[in-house]
Amino acid sequence: MRPGVVVTGVPRADAAVRDGLGEYGVATVHEAQGRTGLLASYLSPVYRGSRVSGTAVTVSVPPCDNWMIHVAVEQCREGDLLVVAPTSPSDAGYFGELLATSLAARGVRGLVIDAGCRDVAELEAMGFPVWSRCVSAEGTVKETLGSVNVPVVCAGRLVTPGDVVVADDDGVVVVPRERAAEVLEASRAREDKEALARSRYSSGELGLDVNDMRERLARKGLRYEEWTGPTR
Amino acid sequence: MRPGVVVTGVPRADAAVRDGLGEYGVATVHEAQGRTGLLASYLSPVYRGSRVSGTAVTVSVPPCDNWMIHVAVEQCREGDLLVVAPTSPSDAGYFGELLATSLAARGVRGLVIDAGCRDVAELEAMGFPVWSRCVSAEGTVKETLGSVNVPVVCAGRLVTPGDVVVADDDGVVVVPRERAAEVLEASRAREDKEALARSRYSSGELGLDVNDMRERLARKGLRYEEWTGPTR
Amino acid sequence: MRPGVVVTGVPRADAAVRDGLGEYGVATVHEAQGRTGLLASYLSPVYRGSRVSGTAVTVSVPPCDNWMIHVAVEQCREGDLLVVAPTSPSDAGYFGELLATSLAARGVRGLVIDAGCRDVAELEAMGFPVWSRCVSAEGTVKETLGSVNVPVVCAGRLVTPGDVVVADDDGVVVVPRERAAEVLEASRAREDKEALARSRYSSGELGLDVNDMRERLARKGLRYEEWTGPTR
Amino acid sequence: MRPGVVVTGVPRADAAVRDGLGEYGVATVHEAQGRTGLLASYLSPVYRGSRVSGTAVTVSVPPCDNWMIHVAVEQCREGDLLVVAPTSPSDAGYFGELLATSLAARGVRGLVIDAGCRDVAELEAMGFPVWSRCVSAEGTVKETLGSVNVPVVCAGRLVTPGDVVVADDDGVVVVPRERAAEVLEASRAREDKEALARSRYSSGELGLDVNDMRERLARKGLRYEEWTGPTR
Amino acid sequence: MRPGVVVTGVPRADAAVRDGLGEYGVATVHEAQGRTGLLASYLSPVYRGSRVSGTAVTVSVPPCDNWMIHVAVEQCREGDLLVVAPTSPSDAGYFGELLATSLAARGVRGLVIDAGCRDVAELEAMGFPVWSRCVSAEGTVKETLGSVNVPVVCAGRLVTPGDVVVADDDGVVVVPRERAAEVLEASRAREDKEALARSRYSSGELGLDVNDMRERLARKGLRYEEWTGPTR
Amino acid sequence: MRPGVVVTGVPRADAAVRDGLGEYGVATVHEAQGRTGLLASYLSPVYRGSRVSGTAVTVSVPPCDNWMIHVAVEQCREGDLLVVAPTSPSDAGYFGELLATSLAARGVRGLVIDAGCRDVAELEAMGFPVWSRCVSAEGTVKETLGSVNVPVVCAGRLVTPGDVVVADDDGVVVVPRERAAEVLEASRAREDKEALARSRYSSGELGLDVNDMRERLARKGLRYEEWTGPTR
Repeated sequence: MRPGVVVTGVPRADAAVRDGLGEYGVATVHEAQGRTGLLASYLSPVYRGSRVSGTAVTVSVPPCDNWMIHVAVEQCREGDLLVVAPTSPSDAGYFGELLATSLAARGVRGLVIDAGCRDVAELEAMGFPVWSRCVSAEGTVKETLGSVNVPVVCAGRLVTPGDVVVADDDGVVVVPRERAAEVLEASRAREDKEALARSRYSSGELGLDVNDMRERLARKGLRYEEWTGPTR
Repeated sequence: MRPGVVVTGVPRADAAVRDGLGEYGVATVHEAQGRTGLLASYLSPVYRGSRVSGTAVTVSVPPCDNWMIHVAVEQCREGDLLVVAPTSPSDAGYFGELLATSLAARGVRGLVIDAGCRDVAELEAMGFPVWSRCVSAEGTVKETLGSVNVPVVCAGRLVTPGDVVVADDDGVVVVPRERAAEVLEASRAREDKEALARSRYSSGELGLDVNDMRERLARKGLRYEEWTGPTR
Repeated sequence: MRPGVVVTGVPRADAAVRDGLGEYGVATVHEAQGRTGLLASYLSPVYRGSRVSGTAVTVSVPPCDNWMIHVAVEQCREGDLLVVAPTSPSDAGYFGELLATSLAARGVRGLVIDAGCRDVAELEAMGFPVWSRCVSAEGTVKETLGSVNVPVVCAGRLVTPGDVVVADDDGVVVVPRERAAEVLEASRAREDKEALARSRYSSGELGLDVNDMRERLARKGLRYEEWTGPTR
Repeated sequence: MRPGVVVTGVPRADAAVRDGLGEYGVATVHEAQGRTGLLASYLSPVYRGSRVSGTAVTVSVPPCDNWMIHVAVEQCREGDLLVVAPTSPSDAGYFGELLATSLAARGVRGLVIDAGCRDVAELEAMGFPVWSRCVSAEGTVKETLGSVNVPVVCAGRLVTPGDVVVADDDGVVVVPRERAAEVLEASRAREDKEALARSRYSSGELGLDVNDMRERLARKGLRYEEWTGPTR
Repeated sequence: MRPGVVVTGVPRADAAVRDGLGEYGVATVHEAQGRTGLLASYLSPVYRGSRVSGTAVTVSVPPCDNWMIHVAVEQCREGDLLVVAPTSPSDAGYFGELLATSLAARGVRGLVIDAGCRDVAELEAMGFPVWSRCVSAEGTVKETLGSVNVPVVCAGRLVTPGDVVVADDDGVVVVPRERAAEVLEASRAREDKEALARSRYSSGELGLDVNDMRERLARKGLRYEEWTGPTR
Repeated sequence: MRPGVVVTGVPRADAAVRDGLGEYGVATVHEAQGRTGLLASYLSPVYRGSRVSGTAVTVSVPPCDNWMIHVAVEQCREGDLLVVAPTSPSDAGYFGELLATSLAARGVRGLVIDAGCRDVAELEAMGFPVWSRCVSAEGTVKETLGSVNVPVVCAGRLVTPGDVVVADDDGVVVVPRERAAEVLEASRAREDKEALARSRYSSGELGLDVNDMRERLARKGLRYEEWTGPTR
C-alpha cells in the first residue's frame, strides 16, 4: 500500500482479555500460543522491571524520520501500546521523553520500536516502558510520510492493529486479536501447571521424575558411565 | 604523527561552560549542536544513572596495550574526562578499578573508551562512571607507545584535547572547545522550548497541534481512512 | 564421542579452594592464571551484582533442545555450577525459573550458558545468577540426546567437569581442577599487591611512579611536547 | 495458525508478469514499488552473477529442522522460487545440493532462506542460485512440523504464497501477487528514465543539471566557499 | 599451561586417511562424524574454490601478535595445515603473503585462523588457501610468547595437534586423529548413499518418497488444506 | 561546522606521488606509514581484484540521503576518489550505477563509502570499484544538505580533502596529503625488503633465521618439549 495513510476506527482486542494476558509473562504467553509471535530477542527494555500488555497501534516510519509517531499519538487511547517499525533498518533515536509524556497523557502503556530510543533516564523516572533495538541520542527528521494502523513487520513478526502485545524483561510477544481469548485461557492453564511443577521442584523432586522423562531417555539410548579420567 | 608523544599545556574549554553543558542531557546537547558530535551508540555506560561533563584528555593506545593510560593520568587535572581510542579495534579490558582510583584522586570525572572495561562492580561502588564498548576482564600488556593529547577518532568522532565531552545514559557527545559557549547557549534555549512543550503534552495537547504539523502533513498527502477489515 | 552419555562420579576441585577463588573477582583470577581461561565477553550476567564460584557440571546440548539440562540436574550437588554449551550456535531460551528452582533446591550456585535464558525477572527475584549470551523467551524442544559431564567448549574455552568456574559482573573464567589451588595462591598474592597499589593511587601517587615506568618509557622514546595549536 | 499445514492450490502471479519482473534488477523493482518489499540486506547470494524471478512457495520451518522443505518440494512447479523462514533465528545449513537437485528437476528457479545454506561450491557448479543469511555446513534434524504455503516473515518482510520474488546480486525483493502487473509497468518506466539519464551522465552531464537540483539546493542554503587551509 | 612452549615430535594422523578425507566435503565429513567438530561459520575462505585436508599444527597466539606463527613454521611438514587461535578475540591481520610463501615451501596445505588475514589477492594468485574470520590489513607485533602444538580452541572447537582438518567453501571441520580412519569410512558410506539419492532426485523422485517420510509426517499430524484466500 | 557547505579549490596531493602509492598494496602502505590510517575492516570491495589510489573528495551525508553525492560529483576531477561518510550509521544503498557512470565520465577512480552500495553487478561490469560497508538495494532520499570537501571521519579514520586514499582487496588506507611523498618512499623501501624476504622464504629459509628471531625468543623463555601424549 502507498504510504501516507492513517487508518481510523481500528477494533481493539477485548480489554479484559488484554489485561488478563498482562498478568502472564512473555515466555508463558509465547508457549501458550504454540511458540509463535515472539519478536526478535534483540529488542530489550530500556529499563528493567516492567510488564505490560496493550492493544497495538502500529506505525510504519521511513528510516530516520519520526514524523508519523506524532500522527499516531492522536489515534491512541487508554490501554493501547505503540508499535513502531521503520521501513528499513535504523538505529536512530526516534522516541524520547516528550513523546512519552504525550502518550502517557492518553493512557498509552508503552512503546515497542524496532529502532533506537533516547532519554532513557527520563523514561525510567516517569515510568514509561520502552522496548527498543538500541539506545541512541541521534535525532530524526520530519520530512516523509509513513502510515498508521496498517499491518507492520516489527522485529521479525507481523503486527496487526488491535492485536495484543505483551512485553516484559524477557522480550515482546504479539497475540492476534482474534486469538487473544483462546491464548489467555491457554496461558492460565500453563501457569497452573507450572505452579504445580515449581512446588515439586522446590521440594527437591527432579524434572526427570516430574515429567516422566526417564523411560523415553533410555529408549533414545542415554547411557550412564563412570568417570575414568584422572581423579587428582 | 609518529606515536610516542605527550602534548602538555593543552588549553581546556572554559570551566563554567563545561559545567553548564553537564546540566543538559546528551540528546539536548547533540540537537543544540546541529546534530553533530555524537559518538557511536555502541558505547554504553557500565552502570546507569550518571551524567557528567569534562574537558577531554585524549589517549591513542595500541591494540591490547594500556601503558599510555598510565602516562595520561599525569596530564589530567580537576574537571577533565579521559577519552581513550585504540588504533585498531579491540574488546580487551584496558581499564579497571586501580586506574579509576588514580584518576578519581586527581578529580577526573569519568572515562570514555572505544574498547573494553573491567571491574565494573567496583567502578559503580566508587562512583566512577565509564562509557565503553563492552565489559571484558581480558587484561592488556604494557609494551608499545601511543600518544597523549593528540586528536583521536573515538567511536567514530574526532575528539581534540580540551574539547568538552558530555555523557549520560543516552550516550556520549563531544563539543569542540571553540564552540562550547555557543552550544551551551543553544542547549539552554532548546531546553526552555522543550519545557514548554512538555507541559503542553502533559496536559493532553498533541504534537500535531503544539508543532503545527497538520497543514504540512496534508500538503504531503496524508489521508485518513476508516478501517475496512474484520471487526470481530 | 557419540552423544548420549552421562558421566557419573566426576571428581570436583577441592571445596575450600573453590570457595576461596570465589572471594576474588574474575579479572583477578584471570590475571593470576596467566591470562588464560576467560570465556568470551559476549556472556553477561542476566542481573548485576553477583559473584559466585562453583565446580562445573557440564552439559553439551543440541541446538534448540534443553532436554539434557533436566538430565544434568540429577548430577549436580551442593557447590556445583552448571555449564551449558550447545553444539551449534543458538540464541533460544534454554533455561528459566523452573530449572533454576530445581537447581537451587540442590545447592547449585548458578548457570553459565552459551545461549539464551528466560524468566530473568524471576531469576533475579529468587537470587539465582545466570551468565548467558542473550535473553530470549524462545522455548526449546526435548527431542535429541546430548551429554553430561564431558569436556565442552563454552564461549570459546574448554571446560572439563569438576573445574572451578568463577563468575561476576566482569564475566566468567574457568580454572582447571588440577591448577585450582595454585591459582588461588596466585590470586591472593595479586590481590595483596593490588591493595597496596590502590592505597598509593588513592593518596595521589601516579602509576608511572608506583610501577617505575618512567625509565622504560623514556628508553622506548616517549617525548613530551608543548601544545602548539590555537589557545582560544 | 497451528503449524503442520500444507496449503495446496495456491494461485500464482501471472507467468508473463513474473518473467517480466525478472528482467529488471532488485533495486529498480524496489524503487518502482515505492521503496517497499525489500528483504533485509543480510541476505546475500551464495554465488554472484544470478538474477531470477519466481513465484513464491513459502515454508515456515522450526529452528534447526529442515523436514518441511522436503514437504514443500512437492508443492513446487515450473517458475516457482522457494522462500524458507525459520520460526526463530538459526544459522544452521538447512539446504544443500540434494534438495537443490530435487527442486531443479521440478523447474524451481532458486531459493531464498533466512538461515544457512551449504554445498555452495556444488550449487554454483549446478547453477542453482540461493540467497541466504550465511553459509554453514551445520546440518539439521527432521523432527518437528512446520507449514507450507502460509504467509511468512522472511528477512523482515511478509511473503505470501504466489507473490513474485526477484533476486540478484543486490538482494531480494517481494512483489505482492495482486500488485505485480502494476509494478512491472512502473519498473519499465523507471528503467526507460534511467537509460536516458545514463546516457546523459555518460556524456559528462551532471546529476545537478540532469535532475534540475541547483535551485532547490540553493533554496535549502547550500553555499560554496573557497579552501582556506594549508596548500602545501 | 604456561605459554611459551613448542611441542615437538607430534604424531600426525595417517597420511592416507588425511588425504582420503580431503576427497569429501566439509558437510559430508561433519555429518559422517555425528555432527561434531564443525568450526564456527564465521570462518570463511579468503577466496573460493579450494578444498584441502591437512594434519593440524596448532598455534596459540597473544592478541595482535603473530610472532609464534614464525616459530610454528619450523614445526610444519608436508601435508600439514596451520591452525591459529588468538587467546582473546582479534581481527588484526596476523598472516600474509610472506608467511604463506614460507609455509608453501614446506608443503603446508593451508591456514585456518580465528582472526584476520591480509594480502588476499596475493594468496589467491599463489594458490595458498586461508580460512579466516575477516580480511584486515592491520599488522601485528612480535613481543609476546604463545605456544605451538598445544591443544587450542579455534572458532569454538578444540583442535589437538595431529588432528585432521578439512576445509572447503562450506567451512572447516576437525576430525580427531584417533577417529580419522573411522570417519573416513563413514564419509565414504554417506557419499555413496548421497550419490544414489542424487540420481533419484535428479530424475524427479521426491525426498518424501526417497526417504519414506509420508507416513511419519502423517503420524505427526501433517494436514493438507486447499487455498481459501483470494484467487485474483 | 554547520552543514551545507561545498569547499572549492581544494589542493590535491601530487599526482605522481598519488599514482606511485597505487603501485603498493594497502597492507604495505599502512605499515610504511607506521601502522596508521587504516579504515575499519568492515569495509570491503563490492567486487574483488581492484587496486586504486586517488585524491580524496570528501562528502558528509545525512543518514539515508544521497543528495550531496550529486553535489560532490561536480567537485571531482581526473585522479580523484570519492569518500562518503554518513553523519550517523546507515546501511542504505546511497550509490549505484548512474552515479558511477557520472563519476567515471570525470575520471574518478572509485568510491569509498561507510554505508551501503547497490547495482554491484553493473559496477563490476563497468569496472568502477567501490569499497562499502554492505550491499543494499535500499534507496535514499534527497531532502537534507550535507557538506563536500570538509574533513570527515570515514570508517573510523579522519580523511581530509586532497589526501591520498589507496584501496585494494585488503581494505582502504588514507595517507595525509602532506605526508604522501614520505610514505611513498617508505613503501618502496618496505617493498624492496619484502621482495628479498620473499625470495629467501621461497627457497625454504625460515622467518626465524631471516629475521634473526631465535635469540630473542630464547631470552623471552621459549622452550621446546617433546610430545608426551598418546601416539596412537
